[in-house]
Amino acid sequence: MLDYSHLSALAAVLRTGSFERAAQQLHVTPSAISQRIKLLEERLGVVLVIRGQPCTATEVGQRLYQHVEQVALLESSLHQNLPVRPESRPVTLRIAVNADSLATWFIAAMASTDGYLFDLMLDDQDHSAEWLRRGEVVAAVTAHSTPIQGCDCHSLGALRYIATASPQYCARWFADGFSEHAVARAPCLIFNQKDQLQAEWLQQVLGTNLYPPLHWLPSSQAFVDAALAGLGWGMNPEPLVIDHLRAGRLVALKPDQPLDVPLFWQQSRIVSSVLGDVTRAVLHEASAMLVPVQLAPKQ
Amino acid sequence: MLDYSHLSALAAVLRTGSFERAAQQLHVTPSAISQRIKLLEERLGVVLVIRGQPCTATEVGQRLYQHVEQVALLESSLHQNLPVRPESRPVTLRIAVNADSLATWFIAAMASTDGYLFDLMLDDQDHSAEWLRRGEVVAAVTAHSTPIQGCDCHSLGALRYIATASPQYCARWFADGFSEHAVARAPCLIFNQKDQLQAEWLQQVLGTNLYPPLHWLPSSQAFVDAALAGLGWGMNPEPLVIDHLRAGRLVALKPDQPLDVPLFWQQSRIVSSVLGDVTRAVLHEASAMLVPVQLAPKQ
Repeated sequence: MLDYSHLSALAAVLRTGSFERAAQQLHVTPSAISQRIKLLEERLGVVLVIRGQPCTATEVGQRLYQHVEQVALLESSLHQNLPVRPESRPVTLRIAVNADSLATWFIAAMASTDGYLFDLMLDDQDHSAEWLRRGEVVAAVTAHSTPIQGCDCHSLGALRYIATASPQYCARWFADGFSEHAVARAPCLIFNQKDQLQAEWLQQVLGTNLYPPLHWLPSSQAFVDAALAGLGWGMNPEPLVIDHLRAGRLVALKPDQPLDVPLFWQQSRIVSSVLGDVTRAVLHEASAMLVPVQLAPKQ
Repeated sequence: MLDYSHLSALAAVLRTGSFERAAQQLHVTPSAISQRIKLLEERLGVVLVIRGQPCTATEVGQRLYQHVEQVALLESSLHQNLPVRPESRPVTLRIAVNADSLATWFIAAMASTDGYLFDLMLDDQDHSAEWLRRGEVVAAVTAHSTPIQGCDCHSLGALRYIATASPQYCARWFADGFSEHAVARAPCLIFNQKDQLQAEWLQQVLGTNLYPPLHWLPSSQAFVDAALAGLGWGMNPEPLVIDHLRAGRLVALKPDQPLDVPLFWQQSRIVSSVLGDVTRAVLHEASAMLVPVQLAPKQ
């Protein structure tokens, strides 16, 4: 078998980004860490760590790191069956989640579990499943509805988005109505290249592809703040803007035309026993914040 | 000279991530876009675009993209001196900014300018200057205090951070005081591998390197939400937590020991004339939100 004390050193370097911090975490000297990584690299005949600020993994290094993390997870479920539990640090769950879920309900799910540490990867709901497919996370909040190989898939409901802008912004750009002509000139917010929500909604509402001028803002809260500040309109999760809408600080461009994005919790079956509490918490909190999925969407 | 209609097609593909959206933006067909990129690649003898969802740049493609964007910026400052202004889209400014500045004051600066579009790259304040050094942005909010080659550097003041947690969290983990022993066991929040703020503050307060169990949360607002939910303690920007502190929803672990992070606005000199309004707005909004930098920090 592989040398797991060497692999633990590798995991600690990649988790913390430095040999010094890895040494602190494992209560050894940095030179001991350095030697273990070197031995591992010599034995496998391949570079595993790109030395830098921070240290990052090569492709093989990343693969080994995933393996160590998975073994640690399996070990933690083993502990529950042992008469004497060896002392161990809480297990870290690496999970891919979309930014808007993190901004609205996912923290509550994390907080209602105990004894886990979370390492969150943020990615678009249309792309978070790829992390799971690549084996880089043990679970994902995703728009991908069919189970990924080796995973269980739970429906969570839909996150409702409202196209929102400030009243001043609407007076300036949509004074003559929300027409194609106006939309093509009015600055619009976009999270990043992966964000299709504004384009999808415009297609749904106006039945056409438009390409408005864009502000690129990769943060859920910044999206709301930018709408409040009158920089542009954007698709904001209802839970983040409901108070602003009620107070009139934001208005819905088309109040009766929200965009519902169905979300799913997919989790690796091999660590199901460890993830049980987390899955329960995720399903519970999602049901409180998300809306039921419409099976027959309006045409 | 290079063919700028071909280069515009390249820029549109890389900005929007797809040939279809680039075509919409330039009012041509996707096959026209495809042909321009192909001609450019054939002429230069190198692949420029990695076709995918989204399309991304090769190294040479990225370099050309930066060049086109810079030419567009220079052109926009030329327009001010022309008797007849050619019709053109608003200019997009690509700027690197740290997440906590975006969450606290940067949106206000953006909103107090007019006629610009913003394309924000989020990175740690200790790393945002690298974007500028690589020529991938025209300006950066950074902790880097010496002017980067070809750039002007303005001091902005310091963003004040407070080590914060919920009262329930403190009762559970720090009931016997904020000792090394307690800190080594109490879950701590960290933004990502680049985030040194918690480690720096622990070093300042306890005079020692500690490695607490970590939750990894790459979002400014999630950091505050996680502190409120009792998941861990973390260094939060004072403007984001001041109301929670006053209302008792959060407490400062050491009220008299904040961590001040001096920030600077560095901007490429070649586009100074275009960036004038933005620089003024940035300096103005920063002065309202940041604290004066202490020249002789307490030992």
